[in-house]
Amino acid sequence: MNLGHDLTPVAAGGLLDRRLFLKQGLAFSAVVLSADALATAEHMRPESSKTAGEAFSNYGLPSKYERETIRWTVANSNADGNGVAWTPLQDLEGSITPNGLHFERHHNGVPDIDPQQHQLLIHGLVNKALIFNLEQLLQYPMLSRMCFIECGGNSNAGWRTEPIQTKLGYFHGMVSCSEWTGVPLRLLLNEAKLKGRAKWLVAEGADASLMNVSLPLDKALKDCFIALYQNGERIRPENGYPLRLIVPGWEGVVNVKWLRRLHITNRPVMARNETSKYTELMPSGTARQFTFVMEAKSVITKPSFGHKLTRHGLYQISGLAWSGRGKIKAVEVSADGGKTWALAELQTPVLSQCFTRFRIPWQWQGETVILQSRAIDETGYVQPTRAALVAQRGTHGYFHYNAIVSWKIATNGEISHVYA
Amino acid sequence: MNLGHDLTPVAAGGLLDRRLFLKQGLAFSAVVLSADALATAEHMRPESSKTAGEAFSNYGLPSKYERETIRWTVANSNADGNGVAWTPLQDLEGSITPNGLHFERHHNGVPDIDPQQHQLLIHGLVNKALIFNLEQLLQYPMLSRMCFIECGGNSNAGWRTEPIQTKLGYFHGMVSCSEWTGVPLRLLLNEAKLKGRAKWLVAEGADASLMNVSLPLDKALKDCFIALYQNGERIRPENGYPLRLIVPGWEGVVNVKWLRRLHITNRPVMARNETSKYTELMPSGTARQFTFVMEAKSVITKPSFGHKLTRHGLYQISGLAWSGRGKIKAVEVSADGGKTWALAELQTPVLSQCFTRFRIPWQWQGETVILQSRAIDETGYVQPTRAALVAQRGTHGYFHYNAIVSWKIATNGEISHVYA
Repeated sequence: MNLGHDLTPVAAGGLLDRRLFLKQGLAFSAVVLSADALATAEHMRPESSKTAGEAFSNYGLPSKYERETIRWTVANSNADGNGVAWTPLQDLEGSITPNGLHFERHHNGVPDIDPQQHQLLIHGLVNKALIFNLEQLLQYPMLSRMCFIECGGNSNAGWRTEPIQTKLGYFHGMVSCSEWTGVPLRLLLNEAKLKGRAKWLVAEGADASLMNVSLPLDKALKDCFIALYQNGERIRPENGYPLRLIVPGWEGVVNVKWLRRLHITNRPVMARNETSKYTELMPSGTARQFTFVMEAKSVITKPSFGHKLTRHGLYQISGLAWSGRGKIKAVEVSADGGKTWALAELQTPVLSQCFTRFRIPWQWQGETVILQSRAIDETGYVQPTRAALVAQRGTHGYFHYNAIVSWKIATNGEISHVYA
Repeated sequence: MNLGHDLTPVAAGGLLDRRLFLKQGLAFSAVVLSADALATAEHMRPESSKTAGEAFSNYGLPSKYERETIRWTVANSNADGNGVAWTPLQDLEGSITPNGLHFERHHNGVPDIDPQQHQLLIHGLVNKALIFNLEQLLQYPMLSRMCFIECGGNSNAGWRTEPIQTKLGYFHGMVSCSEWTGVPLRLLLNEAKLKGRAKWLVAEGADASLMNVSLPLDKALKDCFIALYQNGERIRPENGYPLRLIVPGWEGVVNVKWLRRLHITNRPVMARNETSKYTELMPSGTARQFTFVMEAKSVITKPSFGHKLTRHGLYQISGLAWSGRGKIKAVEVSADGGKTWALAELQTPVLSQCFTRFRIPWQWQGETVILQSRAIDETGYVQPTRAALVAQRGTHGYFHYNAIVSWKIATNGEISHVYA
């Protein structure tokens, strides 16, 4: 295994210098061929090359061999189309979520919206009430940016007394990351001319729940936009076709899908999703409300629950970090349950309010280890331990769980979720 | 129209300061509602909200209303699965091409490869011949990066005597841009231990044409990698499932799909696709060969052929620029056929060997104009006019056409392709 390279750990549990693999050629798991085996391999012609392949397609789909890489859906049997479909983070790499696997959270199903009929209304505390159809909106100036969208309820199984044993995506998969393109809200609000008393905006979707939420105008004017495109193509139905409000870094529910109305007001509307939901009872006995920002979080995606280590030797740990407050400044990884930490390598470019892929080399020699990652964002905020989060927020939490996640590797290579 | 903002052109034909729309709220095409119309609009409930919507899906697809946003395929009737499927660049925004719309170029169809059976062989001038199955390769360290892939034959209709009248995607759509994730080739070649005489690598695919090409080892060791993931998910069949060689910035044919073999040699293999194809007769009577790099290019995607301007007033011109030699440094736009130019705004982050979206405000008052864009990359290279390209390369060209593209806007708003 040791080819003369420096495999001195930089933290306990076998963590190695983050740039080791960038420089060196090390043995992982290739088979070295003998002369005989090589002669055989050189003369083999794969089955796939013996007949002409499939024809072209107008729109491509994943391989039939990848049918297990899907969104896992949990539907509420008491309300049509209410539930969640989770992004399978454990099966993905890089920092973009493909459109077909972006998580879904709907309150009353995915509406069938004819883009020729759809309109967006801007009214309330404005000097000019405006209405747009799609053709008109498509003529406005646009911008593009990558950002994550995370449901405020993502990872809420973390509040349970016992650690949930389930695949990463079914625990943390209500977060995804895309390149969105659309019209800056500032342009439209300036054209409508806000009145002096205007302080809030109530955004409403065209789905059967007429889902609505309130958003402070200062955020709307700062960096929100009305997206028409996701990862290059028009937004898909389950992500808001034809229009979605994008509110970078803030909880998913305010990124209103199937957007039909922006009502300018001087106070929040006190909708269901900002009173009975997306609020939280704190240890003090009072409730948090309008906790919009998604704080820094990270998860190790590989290895994670459901994977199994089948050999001793070198691995690359890979994971995702993100923060609603800006860029990820650093990600640290521990292989001893949080006693010692090593810096992971961040995949560039590191973008604000966006997934950042991190990776670090690790040598596993068969011992029991507890792998953790913690994100630090550009504000200096450090992802908390579970104990610290519970101390701050109590035991009645549901939303905004962002504690450090711990994967325990057993001596047989099996992986479980633990609180450490 | 003029709301007191500075709409002084920065170049002829109505081009405006590139940052105008970032600062101002200007009237485009919204309808301002009267009090009566507003009362009606406020009480309308869209059809889509009257019944519960569709259920969740394991893997999403585009809206049924977007069925015209597809790859246009041109198949060779003399060879099964030989042809092209073009990316509809005229319908896309941002800089990522969604996986379903990445262009396809196959020589003998899309092979059906069982990932459990697939192997990658590294042999020839190495001290250790290595073989990998997918499970082994997935354990290697990975990197992610965005890059474009462009067929060397993209835009070749530009060599025709008369300008082709067709949608942008059917003219320039053999280029797409994705985030790819995979194993650095350097790691694998170092593990195999190259012999001193090793200078080239011959990459071969597992399709029915056993498509093979030669690649200098210095490029392979510099930045090439074996991709397993595209835009987060495993590569799709038509883009090389399960393995594709990524050669950033170099012509598409060397980005070998369905990769099965890397044969290390001391000279190129002189395969069909580096002798009878992908070479070009020059005015001198000699042929160019191994012209790997895709030089800087840009196209205005909106407006472009097939779009129609339906009103006078403000527009945002939008387009794509890319260079195989590195980052795009600037894109200039002309509305008078190349006599005067204005700087376009570049969407950030600007990444090396990657699509860069550019945009610029433009006021059209109904006159005939010729819109052009020209890319300048970080080496200082400037995208040439068609006349300059023809002067250099002659009239027998087929590959590597990267001249400035000209769209003529007629007084009725219709758009044609011209040589200007």
